This record gives sequence, C-alpha cells and structure tokens, in this order.
Amino acid sequence: MRYSEGRLLGDLALDRPGTVSLQQQIAQQIRSRVRDGRLPAGTRLPSSRTLASQLGVSRITIVGAFDELVSEGFLQSRHGDGTYVSQEWRQAFAPRSPEPRPHLSLRGSSVLSSRGFDLFRRAPTAWAPEHAESFLPSQVAIDTFPMSLWTRLLTRNAERREAEMFGYCDSHGYLPLREAIADYLNDARGIGCTAEQVVVCTGAQQAFNSLAMMLTDHADVVWLEDPGHIAARLAFETMGCEVRGVPVDDAGASLAGAERLHPRGRLTVLTPARQHPLGVTMSAARRAEWIEWATRERAWLIEDDCDSELRYRGSPLPTLFGMDRSQHVIHVGSFSKVMFPSLRVGYAVLPADLAEQFAATVSILGRSPATALQAATRDFIAEGHLHTHVRRMRSHYLARQEALVAELRRQLGSMVTVDEVSAGMHVVCWIPPHLDDQWVAAELARRGVHTYALSDYCVAQQLPPALLIGFGATRERRMPEAVARLAEALREVVAD
Amino acid sequence: MRYSEGRLLGDLALDRPGTVSLQQQIAQQIRSRVRDGRLPAGTRLPSSRTLASQLGVSRITIVGAFDELVSEGFLQSRHGDGTYVSQEWRQAFAPRSPEPRPHLSLRGSSVLSSRGFDLFRRAPTAWAPEHAESFLPSQVAIDTFPMSLWTRLLTRNAERREAEMFGYCDSHGYLPLREAIADYLNDARGIGCTAEQVVVCTGAQQAFNSLAMMLTDHADVVWLEDPGHIAARLAFETMGCEVRGVPVDDAGASLAGAERLHPRGRLTVLTPARQHPLGVTMSAARRAEWIEWATRERAWLIEDDCDSELRYRGSPLPTLFGMDRSQHVIHVGSFSKVMFPSLRVGYAVLPADLAEQFAATVSILGRSPATALQAATRDFIAEGHLHTHVRRMRSHYLARQEALVAELRRQLGSMVTVDEVSAGMHVVCWIPPHLDDQWVAAELARRGVHTYALSDYCVAQQLPPALLIGFGATRERRMPEAVARLAEALREVVAD
Repeated sequence: MRYSEGRLLGDLALDRPGTVSLQQQIAQQIRSRVRDGRLPAGTRLPSSRTLASQLGVSRITIVGAFDELVSEGFLQSRHGDGTYVSQEWRQAFAPRSPEPRPHLSLRGSSVLSSRGFDLFRRAPTAWAPEHAESFLPSQVAIDTFPMSLWTRLLTRNAERREAEMFGYCDSHGYLPLREAIADYLNDARGIGCTAEQVVVCTGAQQAFNSLAMMLTDHADVVWLEDPGHIAARLAFETMGCEVRGVPVDDAGASLAGAERLHPRGRLTVLTPARQHPLGVTMSAARRAEWIEWATRERAWLIEDDCDSELRYRGSPLPTLFGMDRSQHVIHVGSFSKVMFPSLRVGYAVLPADLAEQFAATVSILGRSPATALQAATRDFIAEGHLHTHVRRMRSHYLARQEALVAELRRQLGSMVTVDEVSAGMHVVCWIPPHLDDQWVAAELARRGVHTYALSDYCVAQQLPPALLIGFGATRERRMPEAVARLAEALREVVAD
Repeated sequence: MRYSEGRLLGDLALDRPGTVSLQQQIAQQIRSRVRDGRLPAGTRLPSSRTLASQLGVSRITIVGAFDELVSEGFLQSRHGDGTYVSQEWRQAFAPRSPEPRPHLSLRGSSVLSSRGFDLFRRAPTAWAPEHAESFLPSQVAIDTFPMSLWTRLLTRNAERREAEMFGYCDSHGYLPLREAIADYLNDARGIGCTAEQVVVCTGAQQAFNSLAMMLTDHADVVWLEDPGHIAARLAFETMGCEVRGVPVDDAGASLAGAERLHPRGRLTVLTPARQHPLGVTMSAARRAEWIEWATRERAWLIEDDCDSELRYRGSPLPTLFGMDRSQHVIHVGSFSKVMFPSLRVGYAVLPADLAEQFAATVSILGRSPATALQAATRDFIAEGHLHTHVRRMRSHYLARQEALVAELRRQLGSMVTVDEVSAGMHVVCWIPPHLDDQWVAAELARRGVHTYALSDYCVAQQLPPALLIGFGATRERRMPEAVARLAEALREVVAD
C-alpha cells in the first residue's frame, strides 16, 4: 500500500505549549493509529522532510519520532525506500471479531480454583466504601490525623537522594524505622525487644500470610479464636491449614475449651489486648496459661496486638511477647489504625532467630513498603507525634463511642442491645434473635449503611445475631443523623 | 514499699528545648523505669507538687504525665493516698532468667514448617546488597532516575487532603493510576485494555502469589519455563502446586517440549518479550501456538512482560494479551525496573470478568500500595515522564552492556563465553563446564562480587554452568574496574 507523500499524517494535532514534547506527541499519535488500524501494516509513511514542513516542526523532531517507533517495532525503515508500518502488527491488531467473547464459565474447567472461588466468596465485600463516614469497624478517624505534619515528614524523606531510598530496601525493613518501632513498643507496650527482632511489612494481614507460609504445612491444625480475625482465617485456610475454633469467654480465648474440642494445634492466633471482635481483654491468668501451653507443646503463639493503644478504661496488661520466656510468641501490629489505612506499614516482632526467615518470607510475598514511607513513619514515631496522636485519638474515640451508644439506645430502644467497649473502634450491637445477621448486614449495605455481621467472624461457634458497628469515622455531632439512617434502614429490613 | 517523697525521680533528665514535650519526656522516663524494674511494682511515687518543684516544671505537666501512665496501666492512683507503680507489672518484668534461652531447634518439633524451611533455604540471599553498584541482575540504574522530578510529584500528592488519599484504597488500585497504566500499555505495548481490567499491586511477585492463590488448588500441575522465574516458582510451590518445567529453545518456551514431558498444566507462566533469564524473544509462531493451546485446553497463560521496554535491537512482537481473543491471558508488569525498586508498584491486566477476583485476592495478600505513591506514579506516567525515562534508559543500558561485554572478553578471554543480549539488564556468562555455578556464585559473593547462578533458575533442566551478570547499576567508565574485581575473584575461585 502506498500513499502519495504528504497526504498522510498531515492532520496530527499538536499541542504546542504542552508538557509533552512535540516528538513524543507525534510518536504517540502515529503509534495509536498503527494500533487501531488507521495506519495498516505495510503503509508507507511520508518522508520526514515532507511531514516536518506540513506540521511546521523541525525535521529532527520527525526523525526522532520515527526512530523511536522503529526501535519499538511499530515502524520499519527500508534503506533508500522510506519508512513503513511494520508487518508484525497486522495480526495483532486485526479488528476484534464481532461475535461475543466466550463467557467466563466456558473458559476453564473451573475458572477459578476451588481455593480461589472460596476466597472470593468470603473476601469482605466492602474494602473501600465510598463514604469516609461509615459504620465499618475498620474505618478510622481520618479527619483528626495531623495531615500537614505528615506531609512535611513525607516530603522531607521524598527529597532524600541516598541510594537506599530508591533501591530494594533491606528485607527486614528500613533500619531506623525498626529502631523506632522497638523503642515505641518497649516504651508503650513493655515488649522488651531489639530492632533486630523487628521486621517491617505492609500490615497485620501480610504478617499473617507470611507466618502461615513459614510456620505451617498443608493440613496442619491451627487454632484461631472463634469468633476471630477474618484476615487470619483466610491466611491460614489459603495455605491449606485445618482451622479449629478456640471458644472465647469473659476472660478471653479459652485454652481448656480448645483442648477439650480439638487435636493439638501447631499454632494459635490470639488477640489478648482486645479480643477481636468481641472486645474482651484476656485475663493475666489466661495469658500465663497460653504461654505455658506453647512452651510445653512447642507450639507457636501469634499475638495480634490490635487496638491495644485505643483503650478507654482499665489498664492494659503486659503483652504475651513481654511475658514469654521461651521464645514461642510472635507479636504482630500495624499503623493502619493508629495512623491511617492507606499507609500500609505494619510489623512483626519475633524471637531473634526467626527474624531472618520471616523477612525472607515477606520478601517472597511482596517485600516491605516503599522506603520513603518507612522513613516518614520512622520520623512520626521517633519525634513523638505518634504518641501524641494516639493520646488525642483516645479521647476522640471515647466521645464518638459514647455518642454512638447513646443514639443507638435512644433511637432503637429495646430493638437492640449494645454495650460500651473498653477498647477498640466498634461496639457489638445484638439484634433480635430470630434474624440472620449476615442477611441483615447485606440488606443494610444495599441501603448504604455499612456494618459487619458477627457471624462472619465465626469458625464453628453459633452466636446470637449481632452487628459490629464502628464509631471511628463518625463525629459526635453527626452521630444522631448517621444513627437515624441506620435505624431507618434496620427498621425497614426487620419489617421485611 | 514507700519512699519518702521527693527522693525518687528527682534525677529525671529533661531536654528543655527538645522536640518532645516535657510531659512526654517525664512519662517516658517513668515508664522505662517501671519496665526495667528500677521502679518496682508497688512503689509509691512522689506527689505531683513535690516532683514539679524538684524538676522545675509546672504541676500540670506532672499531673498530665501521671494521668497518661495511669491510663496505660503503668501507675495506679489510690484515692487520697497518692500514686503507685501498678502491681500488674511485677510478673511481666521480672528480670529474665540468667540461664541461656532454649535454642530454636528445641522449641518446636520442627521450628519452621517444611514449607517454611524450603522457602527460606531457597529465598535469594542477596535481596539488598549494600553496594548500589553490583552485578546483580535486579539492580537498576538509580543514578539516572529523575529524582527531583519524582520528589515534586510525590510531594504534590502527599499534600492532598482528600479522604481517598488516607483511607483504604479501592481494592483495584487508585483509578487515575489504572487509567494511566491502561493508556501506557495500549500505547507502548498494544495491549488493548481498559482501566477496569487493570488492578494495581505491589509488583510482579505479589501478582504471582495472588494468581497462584486464586487460580490453583493444592497439587495442581503448573508449567513454568525451565530455566525460569524464581519468584514465580516460589509462589506456585508455596501454594502446593506441582511445578513442571517447559524447555526453552531459540524460539522461546517450547509447547511441544512440555506436552511431550508432562501431564496437562492448569496454567503456564511465560516471558515472551525476553525469556527470563536466557534472554530469547519468543517467535510469533510460538506465541500463536501457546494461545491456541490455552484456548483449546481451557488453561491460563500468565504473561510476564518483564524487560519489554528495555529492548536494544529488533522489534518487540505483539503481547500475548494483545493477540489473545479467548480471554485466557493475564498480563503482569511492574515499575520496579523502569522506575526504581523501592517504589513497589506493579499491576496485572486481566480479562474483565476476572479483575474483581484478582483485586479481592490482592486485598487478602496485603492490599495495594500507599495511595500517595500510586498518585505520584500516575502523574509520572500520564505526564509523559515514564516514556522519556525509558527511552533514555535504553541508551544508558545499551552503553553499559557494551562496556560489560567488552571488559569481560578483554579481561577474562577464553575463560568465559558471553553474548550480548537484545533486551533486559543482564548477560549470561558461561563459565568453564567443570564448575558448579551455585558454588562459584557463593564464593564470588563471599569476595563481595554479587551475581546469580543460572542453575538457581532451573526446575529440572541440566544446563552448562553460567553466571547472570547485571549491567544496570554500573556506569561505563567504572566498568573496567568493576570487571577487574570480578575477574580477580573468579580467577581465585577457579584456582581453588
């Protein structure tokens, strides 16, 4: 195919004061015409001189654009004969066939694997609710975060030119951050660890996945609190473990209950600071029992210290990691809640001789977070801002909780039973016993009100129906209105 | 235990013009004394008035510090009787027993699981070499990255106050980034996708893990190139798959070879743009064969497009994703190499009806990268900087490769055989056939020279020994000296 010179491409639209160079603009438009078939394979392009004069640009610009497209394979240069659209693109960009593509279910014997299907069915649907103000227990008070301060810290670190800020980070994480985390945990939680025992990851979820990978084999029995962490259960089930539920009573996860029900677990995940999701604090006696069990059985205890900083009443008890003398405890935490979720920085504290293995596993799963973020987080902690922020959040959250509980009681009366919690960011709201809480939560979500169903957290336990209602993202003064929306939707659903 | 007022704590050291408030400094020092036993459980503290006058601070500061420590459980306030170190801390911070802790191997029947042990044994040891200038194939040219520009883009986005910059990101990734990736891929790689088909993750590695999770079950047969991607193999083996090797010849991964050797694979991972690690470009005919196979067998093709942008000679061929009409191809890519490794931003492009599942799986594995980073990456791509940078890198890398190959030939002569590659960031350097390349690489590493052994990439294939030598991180003018170090170390090792 031949076009007489100059007829082609004379209509390229150039944005002259644009941020993109003329050469790039020209290359880009030719590329896109090759792609969509407007310039078919074999087309001979105008000479650089002709095109330059037509477009009113220098010939060097055209030659540069052509060279670029030749090196990318879009064009071919035939010596002494000009420049052609490459033949290779004929097949690739033939117009798509007009008949409908095969439906997904026709494509694979089973399109997802059983594991994939199960995962997808159970992945919480509302990871990213559109409204910052929602009742999801995972929503934090973004409105109170010191954003200008944070921007300053991030900018300061983004401006750093050292190679370590750009290359692959130490697989254990950025050392100054690990030092700051060790200091913070020693100080606020009495952990008693060194920076060598701290490994940075992208959050508690990545930590669970890594631990499942490195500490369990297919079909190993794992004990998880029932009800308990959805993320932890997904991690261990995905790795092929047999998950068994540890009953939870007023003193926290019950070892006696688990031993009565199940064969020995290779490991247990516990939330002693604030049982997730019921909110119970594990008693000191129970803590000692579990540590004794892990030592005797040579099993692992994974301590998820979630919400330990957000405690409104009573004293925090020592951590399992701090109490343990036999090095069977791994302590997991995250800054997603005490700072903000999109940060994606968390950590594990491990017995010294496990840190290397954990870091290698995190590397395999996807490595630690971007170094500039780790450095800014380090400054936020080491300069005392985290401490100040957590203290301020404690009083914000306490006020929000009180407003939520008061409004629920006022607006819903005897329809629900709700107790204040001494820590964390959500209350458990028991609904009439004949209702299915998963159905209720789904119906509420359809009406724009986002909560979680308690039974989603259960392994085998049958509990009365309840909703987990987060108060983190809703200011006191907006609570009456927010609860009114919830109450209206709930009344509608119950009347159905 | 009682101390007369004022004897205690008068020696707290306060840093008055410090960045940390006096109240925090006081609370912190008391906390640390409780922890290390210098203030034993039951100790009565001086009154706030006494301590204030001793330290020369306002009484409000002391009351504030005490309140904080009471709310944290370090202190207890007994009405009318003053403030005491809480009893809870007695047990937790008893001095550690002086006898040595049990060794790791005494702690669990097997401390790591077999999976964990195997993973750890095989995880590449040098994720983070101390020297930016090394021969590791994964080292990129950080010295040529437009850092000031990048800082400007990151700062601009770090300053944004919208809730979406702080909350949990959309599980598919930040929409404007997905749009920019789709435009970029359509433009540069002829992919033909929409932003809805793009899901952001932290890199090719996280993509492999997610795909292994959602597309395979325990004991599924998976075909991987042999030699091939270590990260992909780890991902699928960790998920319990049976990995079988696809032989690689001059036209790329050989379907006929795989069919002759193995039962049908549920999926295959291919690197058509530049076979990893051998560097072959897959022929157009082979591409068509594989697509036909996936369609017929209802299997999945995962296309890792690594190094496609870094092509020095010849034309890139259309991608498998662009050629496929039956929606059996998933395309995986990362900005770690074309931008910088610590960025941790990558993506997968999927058939439209798989995107939701993939996003859910990434969420379970650890969610997408921090939103500010995604937004800055979006600007880098959409404003044309990525395009410019890749073009510049192509000529830098070509020059570095030429320098490396020339120096290897000049300094090592017939001891090695090395060919220039047409794409990517490393050459394959064949060493004398009687040597074990893993041993050679380990010995070189002991001498500070970092390379990878080819046999590390092999599934079952027996190949002659070779080292993968990266040229990305070493400037031309430093090449003679860098190769001299390598040559000296290699001569020493060979003489051993």
